Amino acid sequence: MKSSIEPLIHPSSFVSKNAKIGSHVEIGPYTIVHDNVTLGDGTVIESHCEIGYPANKSHDSSPLVIGKNSLIRSHSVFYEGSSFGDNLVTGHRVTVREKTIAGCNFQIGTLGDIQGTCEIGNFVKFHSNVHIGQHSKIKNYVWIFPYVVLTNDPNPPSNIMMGVTVEDYAAIATMSVILPGVTVGEGALVGAHSSVSKNVDPNTVVVGSPAKYICDTNKIKMKDGSHQSAYPWRRHFHRGYLPEDVARWIAEFSEENK
Amino acid sequence: MKSSIEPLIHPSSFVSKNAKIGSHVEIGPYTIVHDNVTLGDGTVIESHCEIGYPANKSHDSSPLVIGKNSLIRSHSVFYEGSSFGDNLVTGHRVTVREKTIAGCNFQIGTLGDIQGTCEIGNFVKFHSNVHIGQHSKIKNYVWIFPYVVLTNDPNPPSNIMMGVTVEDYAAIATMSVILPGVTVGEGALVGAHSSVSKNVDPNTVVVGSPAKYICDTNKIKMKDGSHQSAYPWRRHFHRGYLPEDVARWIAEFSEENK
Amino acid sequence: MKSSIEPLIHPSSFVSKNAKIGSHVEIGPYTIVHDNVTLGDGTVIESHCEIGYPANKSHDSSPLVIGKNSLIRSHSVFYEGSSFGDNLVTGHRVTVREKTIAGCNFQIGTLGDIQGTCEIGNFVKFHSNVHIGQHSKIKNYVWIFPYVVLTNDPNPPSNIMMGVTVEDYAAIATMSVILPGVTVGEGALVGAHSSVSKNVDPNTVVVGSPAKYICDTNKIKMKDGSHQSAYPWRRHFHRGYLPEDVARWIAEFSEENK
Repeated sequence: MKSSIEPLIHPSSFVSKNAKIGSHVEIGPYTIVHDNVTLGDGTVIESHCEIGYPANKSHDSSPLVIGKNSLIRSHSVFYEGSSFGDNLVTGHRVTVREKTIAGCNFQIGTLGDIQGTCEIGNFVKFHSNVHIGQHSKIKNYVWIFPYVVLTNDPNPPSNIMMGVTVEDYAAIATMSVILPGVTVGEGALVGAHSSVSKNVDPNTVVVGSPAKYICDTNKIKMKDGSHQSAYPWRRHFHRGYLPEDVARWIAEFSEENK
Repeated sequence: MKSSIEPLIHPSSFVSKNAKIGSHVEIGPYTIVHDNVTLGDGTVIESHCEIGYPANKSHDSSPLVIGKNSLIRSHSVFYEGSSFGDNLVTGHRVTVREKTIAGCNFQIGTLGDIQGTCEIGNFVKFHSNVHIGQHSKIKNYVWIFPYVVLTNDPNPPSNIMMGVTVEDYAAIATMSVILPGVTVGEGALVGAHSSVSKNVDPNTVVVGSPAKYICDTNKIKMKDGSHQSAYPWRRHFHRGYLPEDVARWIAEFSEENK
Repeated sequence: MKSSIEPLIHPSSFVSKNAKIGSHVEIGPYTIVHDNVTLGDGTVIESHCEIGYPANKSHDSSPLVIGKNSLIRSHSVFYEGSSFGDNLVTGHRVTVREKTIAGCNFQIGTLGDIQGTCEIGNFVKFHSNVHIGQHSKIKNYVWIFPYVVLTNDPNPPSNIMMGVTVEDYAAIATMSVILPGVTVGEGALVGAHSSVSKNVDPNTVVVGSPAKYICDTNKIKMKDGSHQSAYPWRRHFHRGYLPEDVARWIAEFSEENK
């Protein structure tokens, strides 16, 4: 812990001397940072958090690594043994257990519960209150909306673990359950309040309980009266993405329209 | 901060000198009260809360206003820029973001997540773990039960925001999703585990996924063997309401029965 | 509070001198232990908890009793007036209200919300984010998975309380609602994303919204390619149970196979 950044650590917090704290890091009131933690430069940990919570002895003891310029909001708990790229942003009361590896620009909404042993790509966005079961694989540019659960046990309770896979650009709408072992294909849309028991083909819409194929995503029109296709969403929705990604997406669709 | 009330502020809390704190206010252990906060007389903020959390710079900086005789239970987070009438009562771990304007006697259950930019009337009651999307409009005497989500984005993800409207006396039962732009009519009942994609007519019951009309609410009998109609609920359920409201409701139905 | 165990109580915590604290108890940082609390030997209360939260004056003032060798993870809130057998284990941010009586080896996952006035047997396991309404009765060896809600009010809102009953060995899968007064029979399985409005017969599978009978549980095969029946789960799933229970279960099924 470099003395130069001590002023940014709140006096009511407990920060281990063994934690590796980057420059310009801020630690809020009543927050605990344990030994086995690496915080990137410019990262902010707000109040009432517990960072680097010791995992069970049966797990390895790799550190918790949080990338640069991240923001972990209040009352969150992160276990040791997971790692996150730069620009992680969380809501309040997030829980992330051990052995999850996530890319850059990951967003986790308030009350998110990531059970550990997951792989998460770049620019993945979880809205509030999602539950990600162990062994989930989430690729890049994925959206998961409130009260969605990714499950993993096909015979609850059992020792079988069949994680869910969500491919690039897929979106899973509010209060849907993805059953064990299911793959949600690239660019697919799972409608709200669905229970998905079979693989979802790329660029298709499924909805219902059990979820059924409704149409291809490009048949869904924007509800703003523009008569444009709402999907692929990267055609029109660019907030929060890198300029180079946006440029690539724009080129992709202008090419298509020729 | 008046010296007369200092004994009620726990020594482990951090309360800004700029916050406007009414008389007989209590602030619990490990709680943070930021600058831009007004707390009404007799209000209690329990432990581990963060009150007046600074909103994004892109938002205005109007204060967080909490009315008189309110109770905010432990581990709750309220952003600056929202306001609440008197007698607000929350459960634990509630999150309320900026730009929500609520009336008096609002109840928010444990784990409630109000996303901000909402309008909420008087005597609205949320049970545990409801999620209220931005741009929701909730009128008076509304009931929302656990794990209900009010959504707002018709083409997730998009920049379109179509908030849900819930009219007076409506009740939305457990684990239902109200889709973007839907209006739940006055006195309507949404059954449990429903997905509501169309407007719900006043005083009707809908249920299912997608939700369909079942009957008018007055056809639902009380399950206590009394053979009375269960709805309008204000005919028989009066706990927690003002005597003048209850008297008006009693008069309304005695009139009807003539 | 015996002086012999003071070293295990974090100096930043507030522990009432009236609380009855067993030997080898640990209390974490920023945690509050109120007066009316009994903690068994070897129990650990982690950080940011509130233990023995005073219940409403209208309730009795029996103590909160936590059995021996229990672990209450961070940010949890337990009210006075409930009791738990030995080996309670919770996730983070659990809320348990007053007048709940639970047996030994109870597990409550992260974000669990037990509303109080419940009866819970031995070796009951709740995964993350379950909501247990008042007057629920849960027998022994029951499993409840994420985002399940047990309701109680058949005419919301009303003063009628019809709790749910869940019999021994039953399992309720993710994001299901059990409607008021329903009994889930011994060894039954409620599939994911179901809404259960009628009693579920013992050893049967129901699924859907409304949930319907699918088959007897013994028709469900393990998804591991073994062609074994997945139910009764106690035939093959033994992790976390007592050796004598496991021995009894093994004997039960070897008998059956003769």
